[in-house]
Amino acid sequence: MAESITPQSEDFSRWYLDVIREAELAENSPVRGSMVIRPYGYEVWENIQEALNLRFKATGHRNAYFPLFIPMSFLQREAEHVEGFAPELAVVTIGGGKELEEPLVVRPTSETIIGYMYSRWIRSYRDLPLLINQWANVVRWEMRTRPFLRTMEFLWQEGHTAHATAEEALEHTRRMLDVYADFAVNEAAIPVIKGIKSEREKFAGAVASYSIEAMMANGWALQSATSHYLGDNFAKAFDIKFLDEENQVRNCYTTSWGLSTRMVGAVIMTHGDDQGLRLPPRLAPIQVVVVPIWRSEDQRAGVLEYASRVEAALRDAGIRVQMDAREDQTPGFKFNDWEMRGVPVRVEIGPRDMQQNAIVLARRDRPGKEGKTFGVPVEQAAVRTRELLEDIQASLLAQATERRDANTRYVADYETFKAVLDSEGGFLKVHWAGTSEDEARIQEETRASLRCLPLESTEGQGRCFLTGALTDRVAIFARAY
Amino acid sequence: MAESITPQSEDFSRWYLDVIREAELAENSPVRGSMVIRPYGYEVWENIQEALNLRFKATGHRNAYFPLFIPMSFLQREAEHVEGFAPELAVVTIGGGKELEEPLVVRPTSETIIGYMYSRWIRSYRDLPLLINQWANVVRWEMRTRPFLRTMEFLWQEGHTAHATAEEALEHTRRMLDVYADFAVNEAAIPVIKGIKSEREKFAGAVASYSIEAMMANGWALQSATSHYLGDNFAKAFDIKFLDEENQVRNCYTTSWGLSTRMVGAVIMTHGDDQGLRLPPRLAPIQVVVVPIWRSEDQRAGVLEYASRVEAALRDAGIRVQMDAREDQTPGFKFNDWEMRGVPVRVEIGPRDMQQNAIVLARRDRPGKEGKTFGVPVEQAAVRTRELLEDIQASLLAQATERRDANTRYVADYETFKAVLDSEGGFLKVHWAGTSEDEARIQEETRASLRCLPLESTEGQGRCFLTGALTDRVAIFARAY
Repeated sequence: MAESITPQSEDFSRWYLDVIREAELAENSPVRGSMVIRPYGYEVWENIQEALNLRFKATGHRNAYFPLFIPMSFLQREAEHVEGFAPELAVVTIGGGKELEEPLVVRPTSETIIGYMYSRWIRSYRDLPLLINQWANVVRWEMRTRPFLRTMEFLWQEGHTAHATAEEALEHTRRMLDVYADFAVNEAAIPVIKGIKSEREKFAGAVASYSIEAMMANGWALQSATSHYLGDNFAKAFDIKFLDEENQVRNCYTTSWGLSTRMVGAVIMTHGDDQGLRLPPRLAPIQVVVVPIWRSEDQRAGVLEYASRVEAALRDAGIRVQMDAREDQTPGFKFNDWEMRGVPVRVEIGPRDMQQNAIVLARRDRPGKEGKTFGVPVEQAAVRTRELLEDIQASLLAQATERRDANTRYVADYETFKAVLDSEGGFLKVHWAGTSEDEARIQEETRASLRCLPLESTEGQGRCFLTGALTDRVAIFARAY
Repeated sequence: MAESITPQSEDFSRWYLDVIREAELAENSPVRGSMVIRPYGYEVWENIQEALNLRFKATGHRNAYFPLFIPMSFLQREAEHVEGFAPELAVVTIGGGKELEEPLVVRPTSETIIGYMYSRWIRSYRDLPLLINQWANVVRWEMRTRPFLRTMEFLWQEGHTAHATAEEALEHTRRMLDVYADFAVNEAAIPVIKGIKSEREKFAGAVASYSIEAMMANGWALQSATSHYLGDNFAKAFDIKFLDEENQVRNCYTTSWGLSTRMVGAVIMTHGDDQGLRLPPRLAPIQVVVVPIWRSEDQRAGVLEYASRVEAALRDAGIRVQMDAREDQTPGFKFNDWEMRGVPVRVEIGPRDMQQNAIVLARRDRPGKEGKTFGVPVEQAAVRTRELLEDIQASLLAQATERRDANTRYVADYETFKAVLDSEGGFLKVHWAGTSEDEARIQEETRASLRCLPLESTEGQGRCFLTGALTDRVAIFARAY
């Protein structure tokens, strides 16, 4: 066990902060609530960006960039929107040494400024759908922050689309939710539940908000991405209109959807263990570390040369590989160090391996000897490593899915709900016919919030665990970040 | 000629704005001085990012992300720095509904906040050099803005490095200048002059600033990237120290260097002509457009199918290709449209080409029949297109270099200087022994500024064109953006 990392079972929050510090993912900055994303953490984010960009492009989107500053009056055009965001705004009041006539808000999200531009760009049905994504920083004044999960400034992508009909916009909202779920499952190895948010939890200004919810290793929920159907709320506020094929002026229907650096937190808390990070191979900045091992000085040059050839073979095969030839550290130290950093595969190469024209493959997701394969022929290094990476990717997903399923429990009444929440935690599935006030009360009494109404559920009809009313609505409650 | 684009000869500034509007590269936003970068313009920026990221990585840098907001007190720690940037700051004074105790500056550049973090990360000589790059938005309150060239908010990368010695830091400053020049020449097809900035023009807080200067089609200069040697100015201000191999505490020496969305403006103004944009193939979002041509309805399906196969072959060869199968536009309209958008190569495919198993290749950089190759065998489509793209890339660079050289003139005295500047414009090369005050006066009298003291010059010793003093210093003056 890495000594400087608190065990998960002892204090999960401290474990999380320890891993972020020791693996050099991020660090607090002198600006309250803002973090510095260090290179290793940023490289995970870059891999997330690349995987999402491919998916956004495949679904017809293009990237663009809109201003950081938004006139305060823009936010006020949509009543619910400004009400939701007003308490969280950072406001620029001085520019170029002078007090501004109209304060500028640092964007907390960009529906308003993008809505304004869309009203200028969209003229006819031929301009629709308009499918644009932006990679950007946004600022929300948060009181309680936690690296990656909740920071004053964060990085994200925000997609904004405009459509000719409500049906098409709603369909697109759901399509992008599917894209997020596909990304989470297949890249981040995080099983997620797709669902609709309650009225109380939905985005300020949306008609309906959807999310993907993931379960962290401590049983808590993390909302990992959201997709909003905005109806014609923003179209009305910003006059986003088009001429249809019959030359009639009609309102557009819009959507917005986002995924942020929070996803890095989800990766850490889904897969990490007491040794530190465990990164899914597809998002790992370093997929394989090669550790050459020599006992005497005369072995050194030969082992290093042999290890370099293995490294080159892996790199040529498109694997993100790094050699650790540090001379002032022991192999044991290096093993622990790279395990703590979550590198999925370690290649060990000593004089005997070299003599046998072989290498040792060690997988991060299985500790000790059990996770090692000895005597892998060197000419198979790339093929076998690639297979192993795929296997680890699948195995991390399987482990997380198993844990999620084992910790999702149907409860039929509020007493059981409270008891299970305290004893087991995890996701509590219930039949739900309560109001927003009921929801608020449950959260106050139990610190569990309504995560979503899952899109897929097999429960059928039943009685609301709180009110006893018959309903076919199912909800998931959990303590959440 | 594209009717909606003002000819360059009539009004270069209007031509520039017309091209940006018609090619849908960017647009003014309702926030004064901020622009919206539209997808086509943003895709050029993404290609710039990719080309630079490869070069930064090859020179040992890693990307990271630092806070948008900087405490006002940080800027004040380096006297020249705050003096230079104070007039241009946007200041957040309200956060979460409350007046802030210490105002936060929206970063105009990040030497201070990064310097603070470096002082925490660097302990010993083993931590050096520290080589980090950031992709970010920055804000400088500009009064006169022009899309891409000068905007209140802009996107850029800023590299920040720390070194054990002054020599190493200076060497790195020059290395990154070389990286920028290599990028400009080989990706953007823009010949540049590497030089050192005058005391008057150098970065606020730097010991020495270097730049690459390019000549636009109207003879004006554009500073296209800068690389600063910061000495130990910021190291002293932020306490960036290390223990050397003899266990002595020493100051670090730092550098910073940046290239911004300004480069998109450089591409437009270097290569564009009266028909619109001409994009260098390596940065073009669309390298090839395929235009299928049919006269009768019964030809349509066949031509489209044939054109799709060509499109697929080009895509498979890694070429960024797009088919224009719009039915409500004539081929002539499409030709003009894509020429205006600067797509380097057009593939024309009609029924006769199909019969002959051939395609027509038309190059953007040579107008009319001269730029067309008929009867290119379809099985050679990818190979020939790739060759053509390389040829166009080289030809754009050659044209720009020829123009730059033809418009660079050595002048020996101030009267000639003024006369040549008014009649010919371009770059004026002079021997220079003047002071900062002389430099300011020249700029006031002629609107030409000292662009740089070129690193490479063959002029030898001569008399300063202003003071008559003997000197071996050579300077380039020009009107500049």
